Amino acid sequence: MTITIALDAMGGDHGPCVTVSAALSFLRASPDTHLILVGQPEPIHAELQKLGMQSHEGLRVVPATEVVRMDEPPAQALRGKRDSSMRVAVALVRDGHADACVSAGNTGALMAVAHFVLKTLPGIDRPAIVTALPTMRGHVHLLDLGANVECTAEQLRQFAVMGSIVASAVDGKSRPSVGLLNVGVEDIKGNEIVKAAAVLLQAGALNYIGYVEGDGIYAGNADVIVCDGFVGNIALKTSEGLAQMIRQFMTEEFKRNIATRLAGLIARPVLKAFSRRVDPRRYNGATFVGLNGIVVKSHGSADAIGLHHALEVALREARQNVPHLIRQELEPSLQQGSA
Amino acid sequence: MTITIALDAMGGDHGPCVTVSAALSFLRASPDTHLILVGQPEPIHAELQKLGMQSHEGLRVVPATEVVRMDEPPAQALRGKRDSSMRVAVALVRDGHADACVSAGNTGALMAVAHFVLKTLPGIDRPAIVTALPTMRGHVHLLDLGANVECTAEQLRQFAVMGSIVASAVDGKSRPSVGLLNVGVEDIKGNEIVKAAAVLLQAGALNYIGYVEGDGIYAGNADVIVCDGFVGNIALKTSEGLAQMIRQFMTEEFKRNIATRLAGLIARPVLKAFSRRVDPRRYNGATFVGLNGIVVKSHGSADAIGLHHALEVALREARQNVPHLIRQELEPSLQQGSA
Repeated sequence: MTITIALDAMGGDHGPCVTVSAALSFLRASPDTHLILVGQPEPIHAELQKLGMQSHEGLRVVPATEVVRMDEPPAQALRGKRDSSMRVAVALVRDGHADACVSAGNTGALMAVAHFVLKTLPGIDRPAIVTALPTMRGHVHLLDLGANVECTAEQLRQFAVMGSIVASAVDGKSRPSVGLLNVGVEDIKGNEIVKAAAVLLQAGALNYIGYVEGDGIYAGNADVIVCDGFVGNIALKTSEGLAQMIRQFMTEEFKRNIATRLAGLIARPVLKAFSRRVDPRRYNGATFVGLNGIVVKSHGSADAIGLHHALEVALREARQNVPHLIRQELEPSLQQGSA
Repeated sequence: MTITIALDAMGGDHGPCVTVSAALSFLRASPDTHLILVGQPEPIHAELQKLGMQSHEGLRVVPATEVVRMDEPPAQALRGKRDSSMRVAVALVRDGHADACVSAGNTGALMAVAHFVLKTLPGIDRPAIVTALPTMRGHVHLLDLGANVECTAEQLRQFAVMGSIVASAVDGKSRPSVGLLNVGVEDIKGNEIVKAAAVLLQAGALNYIGYVEGDGIYAGNADVIVCDGFVGNIALKTSEGLAQMIRQFMTEEFKRNIATRLAGLIARPVLKAFSRRVDPRRYNGATFVGLNGIVVKSHGSADAIGLHHALEVALREARQNVPHLIRQELEPSLQQGSA
């Protein structure tokens, strides 16, 4: 089956100059895939021309006249821009013309649009944002990353179910381990919501392993780690800030004088190999789970390499049809609930 | 004025083998300071003897028969061990025999004991845990780090007042900038408690600069960053985990083969200079603020260098008498409240 991905060509800090080149590099790497570039045809075609690619078998352009600004309030983007590139891309998924869509646009607006256009799956209260992060043992799927700043215990349980399905579909893991992010591993630790979620997860069928502390994210203590969107967003952005500081300090030390510059030159292949392992671009692409369709959010500042990775995330989830798996998983419980 | 610090000699993962050597190195660095080692005299004296230091002008031992285990429930430590080294150390502060105390013991137990023995300052609902972290521009004081997993907006405001006083006393900054940790910088972002805290801080007299996102911690966007203890604990521990993963990946890359090992040898001085800058031991020592006395918590796994830094934190805060400054700051508002 040929997978088709709709890419919001206008999204992100750079728009078509990044999205079009990412699209082409992605099609080269996955030649059996189709890509739809959604947005204002002129800048898209200009970019295609610049890259010497007037037409491409797997590529087509679907026009959308409007562009959602990076700082536009979600409600305004939703109500005021019905022909925005992000909305048309999401609608292509709803209408079955695409198996997934990817946007590097305004996160809040994309979530509002995706939620409105695709609707949540039956049994899911609210969609969540999930991403993979590197760990000492491989990687972990962390959710929610900011869609829900306040969550009920039942929502955390739903996030655990969805995260578990993503981990098992994308990584091929049977019964991925699921942890709840908390301030300690003892039963008495945490706030009331986390404790109530632990009770729900203990009674459920997932491979729930208990509480995981912040350092357990990167230690690889679980395949899936669940938290509310406030905590998840802080954990993710704090990590980004720390990684950036470490990079800057390291660069400063290697640029201190001639001797250190020389050492840097000699250590360059090692430093490059190291950088590759923690390159945030390799982990770009967060999925909105819990919707009737696949929507992947790329970092707004991502370059073509980063966006290429986000397209790969969408491809992997489309191949497995993750929304269908989540629906299947939830149906027995729905039947039980209505019995 | 000679500052006297009481050190819980039994606390931490290593007990006297670390605490005694940290005490001696601290006294060498700050010869005008007095130190009281609190705990079981036998292992303390054995350690002193091992280090060739039978007696020292600035050092004395105060006996305490009991030791709080690292995994002991706080309530049990508080009620069951009235002659524990941590409790006797805190009592020395209450009774005016010490200007501050330091413990590497069980955080929950130390907080319970300190709260019970010293009581909170008038106008403070709950003590908080604050620590300095390195940033791209210097350092930031982050609080709360886990004493209060759920906070009211008014508590967050109190944390902001206390953090601001710590930053100004310890760093000599007049009107340190204060930010609220949030999932975005726009007014509409965040949960209800953070939004209500923002309203309180906007109306207050602090140098409040608005919301700061997770990456703003290490970017150095504010001198003081305030959040509830759940979020602060996750941010801190996630950082510890990420730093550890980065260290491990870097070590692995430099140990890959003979060529990379050679490169590591050549880059060693640079890597060491870099490591020093992000060495967590240099930032060891979190203060319990809001109490009638100074209590500094060292990381349980800290070595003598780390514990030495925690003793320096206690010394700096004792020199400035931070609890007195907080009391002074809060008194006008108390008078207003009772008027």
